[in-house]
Amino acid sequence: MKNFEKYTRQYFMPPVECMDWAKKDHIDKAPVWCSVDLRDGNQALIVPMSLEQKVEFFQLLVKIGFKEIEVGFPAASETEYQFLRTLIERDLIPEDVTVQVLTQAREHIIRKTFEALEGCPRAVVHVYNSTSVAQREQVFKKSKEEIIKIAVDGAKLLQDLANETDGNFAFEYSPESFSGTEMEFALDICNAVLDVWKPTADNKAIINLPVTVEHAMPHVYASQIEYMCKNMKYRENVVVSLHPHNDRGCGVADSEMGILAGADRIEGTLFGNGERTGNVDIVTLALNMFSQGVDPGLDFSNMPEICEAYEKLTDMHVDVRNPYSGALVFAAFSGSHQDAIAKGMKFREEKECGYWTVPYLPIDPKDVGRSYDGDVIRINSQSGKGGVGYILENNYGLNLPPKMREAVSYMVKGVSDHTHKELQPREIFDLFKEKYEDITQPYNVEESHFIQKNGITAFVTSTYNWIEHESQASGNGRLDAVSNALKKQYGLNYELVTYQEHALEKSSSSKAIAYVGVQWPNGNISWGAGVDPDIIKASINALVTAINNH
Amino acid sequence: MKNFEKYTRQYFMPPVECMDWAKKDHIDKAPVWCSVDLRDGNQALIVPMSLEQKVEFFQLLVKIGFKEIEVGFPAASETEYQFLRTLIERDLIPEDVTVQVLTQAREHIIRKTFEALEGCPRAVVHVYNSTSVAQREQVFKKSKEEIIKIAVDGAKLLQDLANETDGNFAFEYSPESFSGTEMEFALDICNAVLDVWKPTADNKAIINLPVTVEHAMPHVYASQIEYMCKNMKYRENVVVSLHPHNDRGCGVADSEMGILAGADRIEGTLFGNGERTGNVDIVTLALNMFSQGVDPGLDFSNMPEICEAYEKLTDMHVDVRNPYSGALVFAAFSGSHQDAIAKGMKFREEKECGYWTVPYLPIDPKDVGRSYDGDVIRINSQSGKGGVGYILENNYGLNLPPKMREAVSYMVKGVSDHTHKELQPREIFDLFKEKYEDITQPYNVEESHFIQKNGITAFVTSTYNWIEHESQASGNGRLDAVSNALKKQYGLNYELVTYQEHALEKSSSSKAIAYVGVQWPNGNISWGAGVDPDIIKASINALVTAINNH
Repeated sequence: MKNFEKYTRQYFMPPVECMDWAKKDHIDKAPVWCSVDLRDGNQALIVPMSLEQKVEFFQLLVKIGFKEIEVGFPAASETEYQFLRTLIERDLIPEDVTVQVLTQAREHIIRKTFEALEGCPRAVVHVYNSTSVAQREQVFKKSKEEIIKIAVDGAKLLQDLANETDGNFAFEYSPESFSGTEMEFALDICNAVLDVWKPTADNKAIINLPVTVEHAMPHVYASQIEYMCKNMKYRENVVVSLHPHNDRGCGVADSEMGILAGADRIEGTLFGNGERTGNVDIVTLALNMFSQGVDPGLDFSNMPEICEAYEKLTDMHVDVRNPYSGALVFAAFSGSHQDAIAKGMKFREEKECGYWTVPYLPIDPKDVGRSYDGDVIRINSQSGKGGVGYILENNYGLNLPPKMREAVSYMVKGVSDHTHKELQPREIFDLFKEKYEDITQPYNVEESHFIQKNGITAFVTSTYNWIEHESQASGNGRLDAVSNALKKQYGLNYELVTYQEHALEKSSSSKAIAYVGVQWPNGNISWGAGVDPDIIKASINALVTAINNH
Repeated sequence: MKNFEKYTRQYFMPPVECMDWAKKDHIDKAPVWCSVDLRDGNQALIVPMSLEQKVEFFQLLVKIGFKEIEVGFPAASETEYQFLRTLIERDLIPEDVTVQVLTQAREHIIRKTFEALEGCPRAVVHVYNSTSVAQREQVFKKSKEEIIKIAVDGAKLLQDLANETDGNFAFEYSPESFSGTEMEFALDICNAVLDVWKPTADNKAIINLPVTVEHAMPHVYASQIEYMCKNMKYRENVVVSLHPHNDRGCGVADSEMGILAGADRIEGTLFGNGERTGNVDIVTLALNMFSQGVDPGLDFSNMPEICEAYEKLTDMHVDVRNPYSGALVFAAFSGSHQDAIAKGMKFREEKECGYWTVPYLPIDPKDVGRSYDGDVIRINSQSGKGGVGYILENNYGLNLPPKMREAVSYMVKGVSDHTHKELQPREIFDLFKEKYEDITQPYNVEESHFIQKNGITAFVTSTYNWIEHESQASGNGRLDAVSNALKKQYGLNYELVTYQEHALEKSSSSKAIAYVGVQWPNGNISWGAGVDPDIIKASINALVTAINNH
């Protein structure tokens, strides 16, 4: 691909190897979550949210369980200013929730931010300036010392203005574009800010280390975070926060490895909304922990409702393949997957398994408010016997003999292939009934009577193309006797190879269904099912259908 | 969130620490790419592709540069069988491309696969069986030894059948569900298969280690891959292949770290299509390498065309935030980002930078066939002066004075906020013309004549609400003289504070545009622009407009 030589690596490794984090293989405690949906998320929408939409989104976030919510950049626009005022004046901030506001490290912007905060019960004031080589050279055209001075001046002003009010303010500093900054410089500027704030155990500061643009692999970021954590002043009184974006598609990995490397807090959004490729998706992060037995502290048990609210408020779409939330993420179309899921579900039921280990389903869809019907086993031309059998069994209570299941599946796949569409459970059931249930042409049995004496003798009134015939024959059972009578009457040459029946509990408690397979001289087996309150009638219907299906 | 205790970790660490890979921070050579779009991708579609759609997709993959393409599971369905036959019989496989076919390790399926391959110039025959604890216990109900026997028997049959033909076949083995398999067992089964095939330098085998379901963090997978690579028999004659899925949103990180850990080859799909959350997105992987100066060996320089073909053939949608390919991934709506991008682009032009380092744009959108106009700087209520100024300058050649740019931006943002929509460049330009260009009501200058003698005297015919007035005044320049004449005639009290003009190269070579700012006693500045072939006329129009805008 041409032009690859135009690019080079734009990140900086820590001056010493920092790979202790890699010794841990999992996260055992959820971080502090901070939603930036109303900030980064909102600013990346084609049409930003209105004030009322923001209020609704804020309430959605509260309901999910976020305790820290960045609500905007109040000094940047009238709408954002008014939104914060609305939250305060309408008293919409619950007691256990802290709002966060963003401000550049510039005097008039910081002052306006504090004006906007008047009367706010508590808030995180988040101040930033950009620190990367590219931004220093191209945008700000300032030396490292000048960039540090901007940060320190901003930090001081925050402290002064907070001291002037009786508000309950915590401070956060971000070296914006951390991901393109030399590590020693990032450390210097953070420590300089911390030297102003002098955080204590009662009054912690937040240092937020963003992947403003993802330039490096996630383990590089983790080693950067480990370096920062190991060398940061006042470390025990600092909440180290991450704010990953997703330009290389690795925002989730950045966050998880960053947590292993020492971070305490994650800033992200629902479904990864945010500038360009988005912020890290908190839904995925939280449910990744959930799937390994860690309580994420956020509640996504009603995912469909959350998706719907999100889509309505942002006019964005949750991608069908978005982990845990997308429409297709629990779907199995392929035969072997369906088979394994069906067996896994049965195994789970039979063995009363403690842990969820069903193949191909990383979590139980029901735990995020999805159903098995329609969401998991879905039928098209790629599907196999496991899938069709599962649908017929779970949706309609039909427990077909294995070989019949295979035959029905081939028929169903063929219809899907031919019509070029996915088939819904109801369509599959209708196809089954149309092709395999109570087919009475050309052969039919109108009546049968039995005498039980030295085996069983059946007296059968049958029709062939509506013309009635009487015949009788013996057999070792009633069905066998009827079968022999038919063979005799019509010169049929088959063998009854499969017979199975069960009550139809799910569709009607008073009926039974029988399945019959008959094998013909060329080896082919034809299948039929019969439904009737009388089990003998059901099995005769099944036999007749199997013969007619030849 | 309730039910988290239902889950536990379902992966297995290698028996020894394998973290050498973490010492490398980047990939310096592209892996062998194998597209599985026509297999995993196709089987995850709601409606699988038709034969002709598959042919078209195959040709798209060839055009992008894939040299290995898995074309299906020919023994699984008639459509897949026919597709392979079509590729062979229509001679559609280029000489430098190898097709790959998938088969379970079952005799009749392997035999049917070889039938389907008849006449194929060369192919990879990819055999698999499932090895995870969950699948062994729940689905196959077999011991480890029995599972190994399935693999070994399959491997032998592949070899026997290949020896019977004169085809040019390579072999691939996948311990399917590797991600839920004990590492020692995964190693044993792979080594048992390799002991059958005894690969040589001229006849390498492929061992593919899938993340069938993503259960672990990416660095766990990397350590598993490193363990396998370090302990695999015939390692120098084995191509180690990865096949990551994306259930935890980490398919890209799995792949990249797996490559650092020793893998040579990646199986994935375009845009991450595939079961559930999808396979790894090869577009992202390839362009991640590209963005660090490594030639990926695949050509995505016309991304819009590739997206369009993909969407048409699969009926799936490339998500707007999909890295490198999504509609919004180069978009900047926010003021500070727009400002940094505009400055970065200017810096790049002025300094003739070697490497691409523009802030907020990980790669140059033009390198993937996207334009700057409309794709990058986009204007809504979140935008700032940098963005609007950039649009007017780059699309329409208007280089506004900085303070005027700010005023115009506030006006444009206000319109976007009020109408609740994004504004297109043309709409912004029209707004500019409507509000700031040649506004002749209520004041206008109909004619002006000048005498140059002790400064300049202007004789001005002006109108106020269409009523004509004559006046004259002197000034230190023509515009100043006209301004003084107007002040005198109408008792206006302002100061001319900004004047700037330039040729309008981009819209018309023969015209000039002038910008004027006038300050009023309350400190407000009003702005105007005038366009005319005559620069004096243009500047008088700008002045009149600025006065009318008060």
